[in-house]
Amino acid sequence: MKARFVYAGIRVKNLEESLKFYTKVLGMKVSGRGTFDPVGGTFVNLVSEKSGFELELNYYRPGSRFDVPYVVGEGVDHLAFDVPDLDKALADAARLGYPVVEEMHRPETGGRWVYLRDPNGIDIKLSE
Amino acid sequence: MKARFVYAGIRVKNLEESLKFYTKVLGMKVSGRGTFDPVGGTFVNLVSEKSGFELELNYYRPGSRFDVPYVVGEGVDHLAFDVPDLDKALADAARLGYPVVEEMHRPETGGRWVYLRDPNGIDIKLSE
Repeated sequence: MKARFVYAGIRVKNLEESLKFYTKVLGMKVSGRGTFDPVGGTFVNLVSEKSGFELELNYYRPGSRFDVPYVVGEGVDHLAFDVPDLDKALADAARLGYPVVEEMHRPETGGRWVYLRDPNGIDIKLSE
Repeated sequence: MKARFVYAGIRVKNLEESLKFYTKVLGMKVSGRGTFDPVGGTFVNLVSEKSGFELELNYYRPGSRFDVPYVVGEGVDHLAFDVPDLDKALADAARLGYPVVEEMHRPETGGRWVYLRDPNGIDIKLSE
């Protein structure tokens, strides 16, 4: 099968809070929005500048069969973002209420990356 | 913060089985691979043709602090792929052991999309 990976959809507990995180903290832009009533769903599509790839936020209203107790789980390991200046990005994120939860290094390459946690508990990897 | 969304990482229970699913069923290509020993992790990067966006498979070896009982959870809602011919894609996937688990329609647009489930239990949306 020839398939093209077009977006990754995450489920969110609170649409406004997640929208605020992905737009204010990570600078994404809303590229689409809609509802799908048969499952009580609202979706918002987000893109970063210089990347056409979409992240979709999926929210299910109370009463939806997908409105179940929220466990982040292991399905999503992390979402990765590049930033031009990691220290500045971390200072901005901390000021907006999202501190670093873990920092990792790869001594052999000097690589450094850092994790924040989105409002749902999903790990967000930032690197330069 | 100006950040660029660069990849989505999913955690996998069995690396070979997930690699087989994403390469044989969905036609993705391996674009990178590595290990990160401090967390007992192996990662494999995958891309689709005509899409530079990466899906990363994250596997953690027994003894890793991330080798915990696997629950898909709500963090990942679904991963979406476009295919040129949905019926043919579904026939191919079924023959490889991945039948349709749900089909949805949007009557007002004639839209149709279908879900398979990857070897970890993650929902995979296919549409034309």
